[in-house]
Amino acid sequence: MKIVIIGGVAGGASAAARARRHDEKAEIILLQSGPDISYASCGMPYFIGGEIKNRHSMAVQTPASLYAKLRIDVRVNVRVTAIDTEKKEISGHNERTSDKFSESYDELILAVGAAPLKPPIPGIDLPSLFSLRNLEDMDNINHWIAKTQDEIAHHHRMHCYVADGEKMHVVVAGAGFIGLEMVEQLLHRNIQVSLVEMMPQILGPLDVEMANILEQDLIKRGVNVITGDGIKQFEKMDECGDVVVHLASGKKLPAAQMTILGLGVRPDTAIVREAGIACTKRGHIIVDEYLKTNTEHVWAVGDAVEVKNPIVGGQWAVPLAGPANRQGRMAADNIYGKNRKFKGTYAAAVVRSFDLIAAAVGMNEKMLRAQRLPYNVVHVHPGSHAGYYPGAKSINLKVLFNPEDGKIYGAQAVGEDGVEKRIDVISTAMQGGLTAEDLAELELCYAPPVGSAKDPVNIAGMAAQNIMDGFVKQIQWDQLEDAQNDPDTVILDVRNPGEVTAGELVNGALQIPLPELRDRLGEVPTDKKIVVSCASGQRAYYACRILQQTPGLEGKVFNLSGAFKTFKTTPTFLSRS
Amino acid sequence: MKIVIIGGVAGGASAAARARRHDEKAEIILLQSGPDISYASCGMPYFIGGEIKNRHSMAVQTPASLYAKLRIDVRVNVRVTAIDTEKKEISGHNERTSDKFSESYDELILAVGAAPLKPPIPGIDLPSLFSLRNLEDMDNINHWIAKTQDEIAHHHRMHCYVADGEKMHVVVAGAGFIGLEMVEQLLHRNIQVSLVEMMPQILGPLDVEMANILEQDLIKRGVNVITGDGIKQFEKMDECGDVVVHLASGKKLPAAQMTILGLGVRPDTAIVREAGIACTKRGHIIVDEYLKTNTEHVWAVGDAVEVKNPIVGGQWAVPLAGPANRQGRMAADNIYGKNRKFKGTYAAAVVRSFDLIAAAVGMNEKMLRAQRLPYNVVHVHPGSHAGYYPGAKSINLKVLFNPEDGKIYGAQAVGEDGVEKRIDVISTAMQGGLTAEDLAELELCYAPPVGSAKDPVNIAGMAAQNIMDGFVKQIQWDQLEDAQNDPDTVILDVRNPGEVTAGELVNGALQIPLPELRDRLGEVPTDKKIVVSCASGQRAYYACRILQQTPGLEGKVFNLSGAFKTFKTTPTFLSRS
Repeated sequence: MKIVIIGGVAGGASAAARARRHDEKAEIILLQSGPDISYASCGMPYFIGGEIKNRHSMAVQTPASLYAKLRIDVRVNVRVTAIDTEKKEISGHNERTSDKFSESYDELILAVGAAPLKPPIPGIDLPSLFSLRNLEDMDNINHWIAKTQDEIAHHHRMHCYVADGEKMHVVVAGAGFIGLEMVEQLLHRNIQVSLVEMMPQILGPLDVEMANILEQDLIKRGVNVITGDGIKQFEKMDECGDVVVHLASGKKLPAAQMTILGLGVRPDTAIVREAGIACTKRGHIIVDEYLKTNTEHVWAVGDAVEVKNPIVGGQWAVPLAGPANRQGRMAADNIYGKNRKFKGTYAAAVVRSFDLIAAAVGMNEKMLRAQRLPYNVVHVHPGSHAGYYPGAKSINLKVLFNPEDGKIYGAQAVGEDGVEKRIDVISTAMQGGLTAEDLAELELCYAPPVGSAKDPVNIAGMAAQNIMDGFVKQIQWDQLEDAQNDPDTVILDVRNPGEVTAGELVNGALQIPLPELRDRLGEVPTDKKIVVSCASGQRAYYACRILQQTPGLEGKVFNLSGAFKTFKTTPTFLSRS
Repeated sequence: MKIVIIGGVAGGASAAARARRHDEKAEIILLQSGPDISYASCGMPYFIGGEIKNRHSMAVQTPASLYAKLRIDVRVNVRVTAIDTEKKEISGHNERTSDKFSESYDELILAVGAAPLKPPIPGIDLPSLFSLRNLEDMDNINHWIAKTQDEIAHHHRMHCYVADGEKMHVVVAGAGFIGLEMVEQLLHRNIQVSLVEMMPQILGPLDVEMANILEQDLIKRGVNVITGDGIKQFEKMDECGDVVVHLASGKKLPAAQMTILGLGVRPDTAIVREAGIACTKRGHIIVDEYLKTNTEHVWAVGDAVEVKNPIVGGQWAVPLAGPANRQGRMAADNIYGKNRKFKGTYAAAVVRSFDLIAAAVGMNEKMLRAQRLPYNVVHVHPGSHAGYYPGAKSINLKVLFNPEDGKIYGAQAVGEDGVEKRIDVISTAMQGGLTAEDLAELELCYAPPVGSAKDPVNIAGMAAQNIMDGFVKQIQWDQLEDAQNDPDTVILDVRNPGEVTAGELVNGALQIPLPELRDRLGEVPTDKKIVVSCASGQRAYYACRILQQTPGLEGKVFNLSGAFKTFKTTPTFLSRS
């Protein structure tokens, strides 16, 4: 058996290692462009920021280590340029010597990955613009920062755009996972950062009211965050490499000494398509449930493939390291006849941004709207552990589910502690077919320093159960403005007066603190719809239940999902100030 | 509707709050012995140790707060002494005034909880012995420590057993969750601690090789840990309250100024049984899946009930706060006709012991053996997050599963970081009906600071899959001694020589480092069984796959589950030194 693997980072290296465990006699050839294999892609921002100090640790495996442990024939600095699926042969050249080579295969695994998107914006090839795909990119970025900061420190930029003593300015284009990680790490290096995102929010996998928690934090930390504005041009200003970014809106950013392009990725599949292996319009390799392409003896894994969306059906592409690794292992298993089926990808992902962690799994509200799927939403804000034990941090947790059967569509969480744990639990619940209601009964570990008797996941499940049972009705934050403008609706704020002064929900809300509500029911009009809010949602829920049982108010009471704590990071609220 | 609830801590308070949300008009009476309701039971050790400083925060709700928010009629300091299920009436007296009272009910919820076990050991009622059930106990313990330490500091113990300037000595009897939490908190208060446990290991919910990780850590911290020895007598030594603990083995402990009894709990159900409500032999209240007792209009929740074991069938009692809270809510729902079924308890639990976290869910090996259920085990030791990002800590993870269908029986984990997250995930997987093999494919969040592309849960799943597929065979730590003594077995250690000197697996093991194995296959006898080990299991697994494919060795190769990292905390290894 001769197995050739194109691409040796996550999926490719996993496939090679697993194939060897199946077969001591197989000839396993791993081909990789550039000098590094099996490197820590996801660690690169942290190396640039200095959190990871050991450059050697960034290359998790080397050709030598893979040979010693697994007798893998690793060939780096090679570029595969053609696949002949008839002859079962690939060919290409050495990137350094230009020497040509070709190699036959019995089985071919395509782990070609995804390349950073470089849209045809004028100036995108200027030398101070960098993408971050591999360790060479990482080293180049590091070198550029060091050089620039050295020039600034030693007064060598007299004729360029940064005045001596000023901070280096970097534009990060694209506010996805890598963009956000780069922002944090650049700040660690005493750099002034502008973050530009074409979409109206940062961090697209989250919905806007969740992503805004991070955005507000970045603004507080001095990052110049620009959303809803595209980049029209990178204009070269001087010989130092300074660039002025022109935005679609006509605005210009201050001259930047470096730009990081984090505009997303596209599958790196030119040679795959040329070989006649079926790809989607967007260029993703099409595989069956065994990860086989439409071509005999050709398998594909990782960021370049389109996979099943097991939540709502259909296909999607989810470029994440975890699925890539597991697909690599599975492709090797299936070459050796294991017939394992890949069930699809749930898109569980997490990013740290300074003290905040943001995590998500599954479908967000934007996706569900685009697919016109009916859904329901709960927003809750429980503590990361028991409130009486010091240090608990509020977790902003959003769960989306099918209003009919409670199927969990997705979840998002933002906070300082225990955030990805809750998304991991919900991701597992989704994979086990549990419903949003089942989350209410989920049994999780509890000790005061690490959890609560009612875990945040339980709280979200109980909120979902209350919605599905009709125990409480709710409106979402984007319906509040309409409610406020509706003469037949009253907004009732049940916070205490001291809390209300910390931030007003809407102008002219009826204010009755919850402990007084039963005694002041007469103040609540029975001929109107009532929308109730408090700080984090619990007291409003209690109030809803009281009002719901008040004669004349049955069926007219609505909880504002997530209450003020959710509302204060929505575009509606933020656009006020 | 008039609902009477006996017991107002976890399940009782939850039931009361939920009932009010169902019914504004209901009369809801909550009866509680002692002055406190809804207090933070699980936080009490942390208050004693000073981690929780705010005494008010320990009473999560007060009678006044429950009345203000929920119009619950809370009556504290009352002792219910009789239940008349015919008349639907309970009666009792005020613990302070001795005034008698009786109260009729439409629906009765028994949330009577469990009381600390006090076996009839001579001296168990001596004044320096304390249990820890409620805030009064907590205050008494605190007061006793303060008084004793004050006496020591001010030389007022001239005639008693602690010499001036010495540390106070406390015996903790019972090494369960509360016992371990007390040990840590007592050490925080500069106390010398002896921990006595009758079972041959601490922390019974874990198996011995897992619990020993904590035990070794306690010993290192100076705790006098005694396992496998019961307490025969508490002997009063002097007027200060000093007690000498006599052990079953004949040993005596140094005089102790205080003893904490953490010997487990028993259901506090005397009045329940007297009322003719069905209980088990051990005294747990029997409920149906709706949490109803055998008696009309009587429901029971929390530590006093026996619940379904959803993993292997049958019933068990699992005194944990999480299930108690959810049962309380469910009983209220069912009183209002919701017909929610309680699916049983998985026994997910966690304890922190200094820098270590230990968590477990489901059945352990001892339970599976007792039920004579066939099971398989994997031990793995992956890092809490990506190895290349600083600060990753090894997680010792054990998963037990059905060898036939992969059903997960339980899991245990010990480590410094990310421990309970993995048990929460596995607990959720169990509740969703996922198998041990499914854990290999589980999709979890990954970013370098919080996870790995192959999460520890995935690693455990892959190990289980390899076992179930017959890809690798294994033996457990308790079979190693037999293997060593078997002349037809060779123990092969594939660690590097430098690692072997750090701790020898067995005397006379064949030592071939993994990278040399393929070139030294001739040294491996083909007429014997081969047991392979390394440091944490990965290299041994690689070696097993190499050997398994070596002519003459097919079917004769066994991996030592968990390798040296598991073996070094087993009784077999520890008894050597």
